[in-house]
Amino acid sequence: MNRVGIIGSGQLGWMMILESKPLGIEFNVFDLEPGPAATLADRFFTTGSENEFVRTSDAVTYEFEHVSDRAIDLAEKERKLFPNSLAINLKKERYREKEFLRNNGFPIADFVVAKTLEDARKKTEMFEKSVVKSSSGGYDGKGQEYVDGPRRDQLRMITDTYVIEEYIDYDFEASIIMARDRNGGKTFFDPSLNVNHSGMLLYNSSPLDDYGMRDIAAKLSDALDYVGVLSVEFFIKDGKPIINEFAPRVHNSGHHTLLGSSISQFEQHIRVVTGMPPMRPRLFCPSGIVNIVGRDLDYKTKEKLLEIDGSRIYWYGKQVRRRRKVGHVNLIGDDRSDLDAKIETAKKILYGDHMADFF
Amino acid sequence: MNRVGIIGSGQLGWMMILESKPLGIEFNVFDLEPGPAATLADRFFTTGSENEFVRTSDAVTYEFEHVSDRAIDLAEKERKLFPNSLAINLKKERYREKEFLRNNGFPIADFVVAKTLEDARKKTEMFEKSVVKSSSGGYDGKGQEYVDGPRRDQLRMITDTYVIEEYIDYDFEASIIMARDRNGGKTFFDPSLNVNHSGMLLYNSSPLDDYGMRDIAAKLSDALDYVGVLSVEFFIKDGKPIINEFAPRVHNSGHHTLLGSSISQFEQHIRVVTGMPPMRPRLFCPSGIVNIVGRDLDYKTKEKLLEIDGSRIYWYGKQVRRRRKVGHVNLIGDDRSDLDAKIETAKKILYGDHMADFF
Repeated sequence: MNRVGIIGSGQLGWMMILESKPLGIEFNVFDLEPGPAATLADRFFTTGSENEFVRTSDAVTYEFEHVSDRAIDLAEKERKLFPNSLAINLKKERYREKEFLRNNGFPIADFVVAKTLEDARKKTEMFEKSVVKSSSGGYDGKGQEYVDGPRRDQLRMITDTYVIEEYIDYDFEASIIMARDRNGGKTFFDPSLNVNHSGMLLYNSSPLDDYGMRDIAAKLSDALDYVGVLSVEFFIKDGKPIINEFAPRVHNSGHHTLLGSSISQFEQHIRVVTGMPPMRPRLFCPSGIVNIVGRDLDYKTKEKLLEIDGSRIYWYGKQVRRRRKVGHVNLIGDDRSDLDAKIETAKKILYGDHMADFF
Repeated sequence: MNRVGIIGSGQLGWMMILESKPLGIEFNVFDLEPGPAATLADRFFTTGSENEFVRTSDAVTYEFEHVSDRAIDLAEKERKLFPNSLAINLKKERYREKEFLRNNGFPIADFVVAKTLEDARKKTEMFEKSVVKSSSGGYDGKGQEYVDGPRRDQLRMITDTYVIEEYIDYDFEASIIMARDRNGGKTFFDPSLNVNHSGMLLYNSSPLDDYGMRDIAAKLSDALDYVGVLSVEFFIKDGKPIINEFAPRVHNSGHHTLLGSSISQFEQHIRVVTGMPPMRPRLFCPSGIVNIVGRDLDYKTKEKLLEIDGSRIYWYGKQVRRRRKVGHVNLIGDDRSDLDAKIETAKKILYGDHMADFF
């Protein structure tokens, strides 16, 4: 188990390599175009070399689940794919994910499916307020519209399949990152409180009370017969967790594990997908991140961010575009209010009062 | 300050890159032959391309101080070298380092210098027991001999310049890792207790009482007008610190900062040599390492090491040779005795009862 193949070459793969290279692993990276992870890969593969990619990898995992069906299929056929493709297939169509969760008794928002705009508009009347999402594609707030029941004509999105979800007037958003190993053993990172802006994660912080998230994530990982790091996002309403969605991989809301933790989600993932023992994660102190979205980092800004006592910068080396995550700042605090203050400081340094220029 | 040049391509440079790549830095690496750090470098340079190496680097540092005088000289001429060459020049000849320390009033073992074997033998009579070292070269216990005063004829080493030091019957060895920035600002990691086997570091653990080491290291860094991470090794005798030697760079006895710390010595070094703000290091829990020397790591051994709760492996990817450091295991403990027990377990897994086969 010396060579791991990663499908996708974005920042998640880049951090997987940075964090687990010390384990003595070589990395194959597969993508349509080389991204950040390609710069650290021992070998980069692209379309046409799926066979070679899988053949030369002892285990195959992915940092983004929608890159190459062919590479996924080949890896699964060779019994090298971790996590398996069930999670990927569920994630291809949001209605499948939702049906799977409902059929397995997990708490989710009520939903219906529609195939035409007309039908979707009609079905929004079932709920006082609804969120209509394109069943496939769409992330970071793209491909979704909010609809008040009485004003259903406002829905304009054109897509193949609509998922009309009851809008949850939640108190806050949270997530939990866990790892399930090949023997079904489970390790959990502390949950985090996530704050979005314009559909994208702006910042988060950990720890957070459990609210039952750990149990739900554990059961979900069993239901998926999952091997790897699994991320589950929740709405918390009146102290109860409702699954928003899961991600079959490391996740932006787990980046805080890179500072103030005994192990990061990235190394934990690579450990379990290669069959190596995971570490029981310890969170040493309150820890959080602020995402860097849609802006470059000049030297002066970097300096200001690093002057915050207990900060690290992750700059992914990607081209900057509005609404694109190009890095994040890790922050630790002596206590919760210290961390909160540092998050505010970092936000101010990055965006001032002009958030809308970047997100 | 986007491109840093590292002279030397060993594991220290490799860990510098792994740890500080997230800061958005590109790395030039210079060495006579490509080592581990070359596999992560953005560009590798070798003999003949010293000019280009320095020209394309915004700051130049070194992970090993004896690789290329030419690259060091060029970088210093361009005012890009951090730390400056004073420390390097002192380290070229052990007697210069000792004289510098003595002239500046630092606590060291008494010593004399000799140019011939005959003179060296005679001078060993000055001390009840002495350690005779070759003034240049020599590390990890190479190039040194122990001599009892009355048996001075036992000295056999042939070298250019001999440093005859009074043997200190110390209680234990310790070291401190600190960083000095361009404004003279200082940050300190917790000191560690170091245990050697056959002249090489076998394991160490942190924290340790200070014994005045912090003050001495701070003064030494000022005396050297130092910028970067400085490592100072001590003998502790009757509660008093005596400098054994310093290393003008990150150091094996600082590898414990890779687990259970808010920042590693490697990132701290890159931050200060690029003029970026250092982090105040926090040691979250007792932390230590066991060196992997002279042996390969099969999958089963890796698994056993990672089954120790709170361990990480750093495998440098070097060819294995007897008495060669090829990796280390990081360990954290809930308390000191928990850590000590884990260190024992790791030592047993790695060496069993056959230490001499590896060291």
